[in-house]
Amino acid sequence: MSDAPLPEIDFWFSIGSTYTYLSVMRLPDLAAKTGITFNWRPFSVRAIMIEQKNIPFVGKPARTAHMWRDIARRAPYYGLSPKIPAPYPLENFDLTNQVAILAAQEGWVQDYTRATYQRWFEHGEPAGSDPNLSTSLNAIGQDPARVIPAAQTEFCLSAYTQATNQARDLGIFGAPSFIVGSELFWGDDRIEDAVDWAYAQQAVS
Amino acid sequence: MSDAPLPEIDFWFSIGSTYTYLSVMRLPDLAAKTGITFNWRPFSVRAIMIEQKNIPFVGKPARTAHMWRDIARRAPYYGLSPKIPAPYPLENFDLTNQVAILAAQEGWVQDYTRATYQRWFEHGEPAGSDPNLSTSLNAIGQDPARVIPAAQTEFCLSAYTQATNQARDLGIFGAPSFIVGSELFWGDDRIEDAVDWAYAQQAVS
Repeated sequence: MSDAPLPEIDFWFSIGSTYTYLSVMRLPDLAAKTGITFNWRPFSVRAIMIEQKNIPFVGKPARTAHMWRDIARRAPYYGLSPKIPAPYPLENFDLTNQVAILAAQEGWVQDYTRATYQRWFEHGEPAGSDPNLSTSLNAIGQDPARVIPAAQTEFCLSAYTQATNQARDLGIFGAPSFIVGSELFWGDDRIEDAVDWAYAQQAVS
Repeated sequence: MSDAPLPEIDFWFSIGSTYTYLSVMRLPDLAAKTGITFNWRPFSVRAIMIEQKNIPFVGKPARTAHMWRDIARRAPYYGLSPKIPAPYPLENFDLTNQVAILAAQEGWVQDYTRATYQRWFEHGEPAGSDPNLSTSLNAIGQDPARVIPAAQTEFCLSAYTQATNQARDLGIFGAPSFIVGSELFWGDDRIEDAVDWAYAQQAVS
């Protein structure tokens, strides 16, 4: 084993992606177990998917049914008990991700993202709308009256666009995505491959 | 552990699907290791995907690049060394799957499918066209002069359509797919989940 530090993994996500629920809920344990730092990077997967005409679920009932069943079957592997299907798609997709952008700048992005996903997937309250939005912020010690307007300033909108541009430049086309060095791994089910890759990079460095 | 027999798993596939290369090559070992019988069921995933407007790769360069890279990264987990990218898409998609339909009726579908995928992914020869088609048939002791016309009779065409209709009725929208009882698992990366499900069904039966 090399003494080189473990590579970090950039975790690119959008609140609104269904499989991202699994990642958001299991990443903290995985980080503790592996010693790997995950950098939580919110962006708009919706903007990129629209550009790329990547429409996985709308008008595709068989594929949608499998997606929900697949999440329900995999959740117990991680000790999770979601109510499936969760309300989908989100009405306020951009607002909740703009809050995540602000949260990333201020250091509470993991807490916010987990709180809002938990209410969305375990209590049936859509992320980005009340009661989820205010309740999640209050629960993590943030003031909705400050945060919600701050998340909609030109500064946050611009940071959101920049993050999305950076994701596109990295070849990201879906969420969740994991970047290790120049390698892109797409999907909650590729986290373990990304971790293996990070360890292998350490071994050769 | 129950004395009940292990549930069998229906393996629905189309020669032409890229991820199916991984499944086709690793299923025999997995069957031996788990004691589970996999029933190999060729069908036309292309017909179903066109109907459902499910177009994962055409005109989607970022997603296509990830698909090839993902297969290249996962192949070594199974001891495989494909030449990536393989020629794609297949020109004679239907012909090679009609041969598989005949092969399933005559008992040599695993041998044919593995031989033709190996030439396609490891030697760069598209499945369904010569030299792949005749060489693969000869290699497994089948006569191309008999098989290729037989695969195009009304009888085989009708069996191919029936298999595709059955797949659609089962909720299948992509390949490879795995059916255990009434549960559908989609993707090479869900084989282990399907195996877990089969064991769990045995335990409760």
